[in-house]
Amino acid sequence: MNLNIVLYQPEIPQNTGNIGRTCVLTNSSLHLIKPLGFLLTDKYLKRAGMDYWKDLDVHYYESFEEFYEKHKGKRMFLSTTRGKKLYTDVQYNVGDFIIFGRESSGVPDYIRDLLKENLIRIPMVETTDRSLNLSNSAAIIMFEALRQIGFPNMK
Amino acid sequence: MNLNIVLYQPEIPQNTGNIGRTCVLTNSSLHLIKPLGFLLTDKYLKRAGMDYWKDLDVHYYESFEEFYEKHKGKRMFLSTTRGKKLYTDVQYNVGDFIIFGRESSGVPDYIRDLLKENLIRIPMVETTDRSLNLSNSAAIIMFEALRQIGFPNMK
Repeated sequence: MNLNIVLYQPEIPQNTGNIGRTCVLTNSSLHLIKPLGFLLTDKYLKRAGMDYWKDLDVHYYESFEEFYEKHKGKRMFLSTTRGKKLYTDVQYNVGDFIIFGRESSGVPDYIRDLLKENLIRIPMVETTDRSLNLSNSAAIIMFEALRQIGFPNMK
Repeated sequence: MNLNIVLYQPEIPQNTGNIGRTCVLTNSSLHLIKPLGFLLTDKYLKRAGMDYWKDLDVHYYESFEEFYEKHKGKRMFLSTTRGKKLYTDVQYNVGDFIIFGRESSGVPDYIRDLLKENLIRIPMVETTDRSLNLSNSAAIIMFEALRQIGFPNMK
């Protein structure tokens, strides 16, 4: 697998569906940390993920602790508007984990503190305190990482 | 303005809403070529664009001909799964136009032929004939172009 994409308690099914679709099309795995803000049978999830969901390598965790216990020691980045480094200023490797917080409120402080050496940010116009759509943010960072690692098995 | 994003007859209001939001957050203009597959008052457009739409520099055209007549001579790229060059293999300039086709069927052949020197493609896994969500594709190419031109007036 090229990348590991982690969604912390995602709220909006269309976003998770679109990110699942991007994962399938880039040979990446999706990790979903519960609780989710929707049912896995949600029609919007299926519609956004279209018929990609059946091909998706997806893993579920009951909590962040369960996720972290399983994957600690692997390289993890956290996408946050409070990151100091631009997402383009880090070097990605095959297999990296990239974590995205909730649409409304990101991640709790303890997760940000835990990953404080690896916070990354997407630049936006200086006048805003708003942010990009979650599936767009994931696509932007995923394709920067994939560009850097040479789009393996992609054409 | 950093970039000019052109949607040819977009069909799904959430996509246009999300792309409008990305335009506002990157100091880019949006150009919409009619007919659109939704009303400009559509609730999904507003919800996806949130309260960004009022800040958007948006231009409407009755047809591709009207758009082309107004902007011919400017540098235009067309995003298409049939592009020969990867979107990362071209050099973007401030003010470039990047055109995206309909979600279902892209653009008619005459537009692809007109822009045949500047077709760009996002790589995907080799086994698929499917494609990324339109707003994700736009975000990926926009941020590659913005990265190359140094994220002007973004932080």
